[in-house]
Amino acid sequence: MTGAESLLRTLVTNGVDTCFMNPGTSEMHFVAALDRVPGMRGVLCLFEGVCSGAADGYARVLGQPASTLLHLGPGLANGLANFHNARKARSPIVNIVGEHATQHLVVDAPLSADIATFAKTVSGYVRTATSADDIGQATAETILAAWGPPGVVASLIIPADYSWSQATVGGPVVVPKVRTMPEFGRLEKAAELVRKPGTAILLGGAASNRKALEAGARLAAATGVKIIVARNSGSQVGGRDSYDIPQVPYFPEGALPMFADVQNLILVEAERPVSFFAYPGIPSEMTAPGCVDFVLASRSEDGTAAMLALADGCPRVWLGDAESLTAPSDDAALTLEAVGRTVAALMPEGAIIADELVSSAGEVHAQLRHAAPFDFLPVTGGSIGQGLPVAVGAAIAAPHRKVISLEADGSAMYTLQALWTMVRENLDVTVVIMNNRRYKILEIEMRRTGANGFGPLANDMIDISRPDLDFVRLAEGMGVEASRARTAREFAEQFGDAMGRPGPRLIEACVA
Amino acid sequence: MTGAESLLRTLVTNGVDTCFMNPGTSEMHFVAALDRVPGMRGVLCLFEGVCSGAADGYARVLGQPASTLLHLGPGLANGLANFHNARKARSPIVNIVGEHATQHLVVDAPLSADIATFAKTVSGYVRTATSADDIGQATAETILAAWGPPGVVASLIIPADYSWSQATVGGPVVVPKVRTMPEFGRLEKAAELVRKPGTAILLGGAASNRKALEAGARLAAATGVKIIVARNSGSQVGGRDSYDIPQVPYFPEGALPMFADVQNLILVEAERPVSFFAYPGIPSEMTAPGCVDFVLASRSEDGTAAMLALADGCPRVWLGDAESLTAPSDDAALTLEAVGRTVAALMPEGAIIADELVSSAGEVHAQLRHAAPFDFLPVTGGSIGQGLPVAVGAAIAAPHRKVISLEADGSAMYTLQALWTMVRENLDVTVVIMNNRRYKILEIEMRRTGANGFGPLANDMIDISRPDLDFVRLAEGMGVEASRARTAREFAEQFGDAMGRPGPRLIEACVA
Repeated sequence: MTGAESLLRTLVTNGVDTCFMNPGTSEMHFVAALDRVPGMRGVLCLFEGVCSGAADGYARVLGQPASTLLHLGPGLANGLANFHNARKARSPIVNIVGEHATQHLVVDAPLSADIATFAKTVSGYVRTATSADDIGQATAETILAAWGPPGVVASLIIPADYSWSQATVGGPVVVPKVRTMPEFGRLEKAAELVRKPGTAILLGGAASNRKALEAGARLAAATGVKIIVARNSGSQVGGRDSYDIPQVPYFPEGALPMFADVQNLILVEAERPVSFFAYPGIPSEMTAPGCVDFVLASRSEDGTAAMLALADGCPRVWLGDAESLTAPSDDAALTLEAVGRTVAALMPEGAIIADELVSSAGEVHAQLRHAAPFDFLPVTGGSIGQGLPVAVGAAIAAPHRKVISLEADGSAMYTLQALWTMVRENLDVTVVIMNNRRYKILEIEMRRTGANGFGPLANDMIDISRPDLDFVRLAEGMGVEASRARTAREFAEQFGDAMGRPGPRLIEACVA
Repeated sequence: MTGAESLLRTLVTNGVDTCFMNPGTSEMHFVAALDRVPGMRGVLCLFEGVCSGAADGYARVLGQPASTLLHLGPGLANGLANFHNARKARSPIVNIVGEHATQHLVVDAPLSADIATFAKTVSGYVRTATSADDIGQATAETILAAWGPPGVVASLIIPADYSWSQATVGGPVVVPKVRTMPEFGRLEKAAELVRKPGTAILLGGAASNRKALEAGARLAAATGVKIIVARNSGSQVGGRDSYDIPQVPYFPEGALPMFADVQNLILVEAERPVSFFAYPGIPSEMTAPGCVDFVLASRSEDGTAAMLALADGCPRVWLGDAESLTAPSDDAALTLEAVGRTVAALMPEGAIIADELVSSAGEVHAQLRHAAPFDFLPVTGGSIGQGLPVAVGAAIAAPHRKVISLEADGSAMYTLQALWTMVRENLDVTVVIMNNRRYKILEIEMRRTGANGFGPLANDMIDISRPDLDFVRLAEGMGVEASRARTAREFAEQFGDAMGRPGPRLIEACVA
């Protein structure tokens, strides 16, 4: 058994059976081992940011780690932006990075770089294997670290000579820690707080699921406590069974009023809410001065169980009747509202939405609350280019669910290579790209940051219409069936068609 | 004057008048300042790796720094791989990265990350501005650091509130250091060595230019010393005036014999040659055991002047008559040799070749030695995805020269967004993509690393033909005129047409 085979065997025996990869020379023994150690699904991506984003999407849907295989420092570098999002989502990922053979490290070869420092920027755990025999144990420890809770990007650096040398052992099967219930005293304290006026519960992390929301809705009805969902947990729920529980808005103008009268904030796998960016004269913290936090469940504890315990005995809250939704089918120019209504009306129950709408989010999301229940994978770390890769990972994690990637034109262009992997793996993903031909969020942010003198040169840096991006051709260039919708009717027809059959599909929604 | 205006003014007054950017909210004041401080050319790129690669290409052609403007840690992360190449090329770059406003740094916002650590991985200099008033001085010092010599990626991190606050001063005009002549004693010693048998001179860095090569050719003719050009300097020369001076080959099997009889190696802005990767049983250093180095000129010294001094009095070496080159125009399936011969025959004198051919390099490059003189920008750091961005930067640096991007299919897909900037800026770049539908270099490396068991699953990880990439559609999706060549005749017609008129053009060369 080579070191590479020990690595692969340890991954597979611990259930890490999917590897999103863009390998190079130093990873060839791992690749060769795919045929000798059964059980690993290798998913090739044309760019490392697709690998890291896909592993994030996979973890958000399944709650368990996939692995990534990247090539030396620069290959890792290309994956960092989406690992940043994964870090903020607390997604468990086993990130394997090849290193030059140890005898080669003393010479300054072109690809030599400080891999551990690259890795440190996004990883909760970084380890370098110290021999071929060490690889099994190192892999097991990396898997354990990835699991958390909360999950982290755990990076394992493997010198090529350890991969190609003989190893005597594989790594052990490890038993991940589970989230533990907060101690009783905290539950008692929270039970007291929820009955006081001016108390709110902020649900985040793994506790923004349906069970926790349902408990929250019961608690709110019984006690008057306000329930709020944090903005950036890795996986959220949406649609008509989410009890109209509000989420922290993106802009401070929306978020500050939500917390203005909150004197006690109970945190359930969440942190105090802060704004995405700072603006002149606007506070960074969304809670009012004097608001006191109380941590009911930390990120490593079981916030869902805590919520269920807290709501124990509170009567069930009935959801209203489902509103009958119809997709607009007129010939008017396509609007964001029409896109949102169509998606809400036509998507199947249990769909997964990978979202990176940026400036289009508000109008589209507003339409989704009456949709059939769905899971929602939001932007977590603000690093653009996660949407399509996260959709790839989600579709591999949940092959029998429809994945809908709601994507913006500017954002799509960071990691468009994800489309190719969708075709290669025949993933059931429908990509909808809102093409407004502008970095429109920056137009909004430009005004908000007080940078008012918005002249033609500045405008040119947020205008992406010269030349226009043709997403139909771009998609077809990677083998994806694609079409363009300019009216509500066209969009409804195309989106309906995409919902009706499996496989990758792209719709360019011309919304401006 | 805001801090952002101070930054911009200091850049422009120091001749850093081009900025490759992909800005975000924290950089909006810099963008807004473009209309208030004249003289900066902002070049928008759809992905940060295009910005960093373009700045590298610009520096390699002009020998002076451009700037980049990137958005926080993740934006910087996306630029790191091509900064790695720039670092290895010793390209001077002023890399500006926006940071959250200082009051926002204490809260863990989604985009918060350790920017300095991201920057450290590729930068020779990292500085964070400490106030709005500090920005001018900080910018000047960053520019000075970028210049070197040798050039480095110098990173300046600017918190958003310092950008939007008032600054009383801009930064000073700085005077970059120049390369100095090595002291006389080293010239004397080198003059002695070149007359001994078993001596070779390795030319690298800024000393792989025409003047240094010409001096080397004279010295070789007069003394018998062997002249070799290092593999990975940022800018090299090619074509029929390069005196057939050999370059260190990529694979050790080629490089080891070149140095087998070298007992004394004179280094001129070069380091001891090492192989790109390590292989079982093959040494990493290409020089023979016992070979003694002598540094005639370090990376910060003027190796060209040293070569001219050393060759002083050696008679001129005449180049042979130019071979008459014709482009093949038969209807046989296109081969790499035909591509190389056609490019060599039809490209204009003074063209710039941005090269990232990987497995296709050998056969194509062999044909270029009889071409009209050209400059050649090779892969320096081995990080894939530099070719198209470097071509963008080269074309902006040298608007009156034809830039030819020789690119591989796999490599093109890392930073294909560069095509869009070529159209936007109407750059005179002809992109030739060798489409062999495979990570072919990995097939070669797979065998070389001793990973012999090359089964179907492993093969699948280097096969990029499922689905086939259609580079014509991909290019058209970004507004680039594109065509496909399957025969020598088609390629000659299309390449000839591209040489005959300016502007961006892409040819997909189907070579397998």
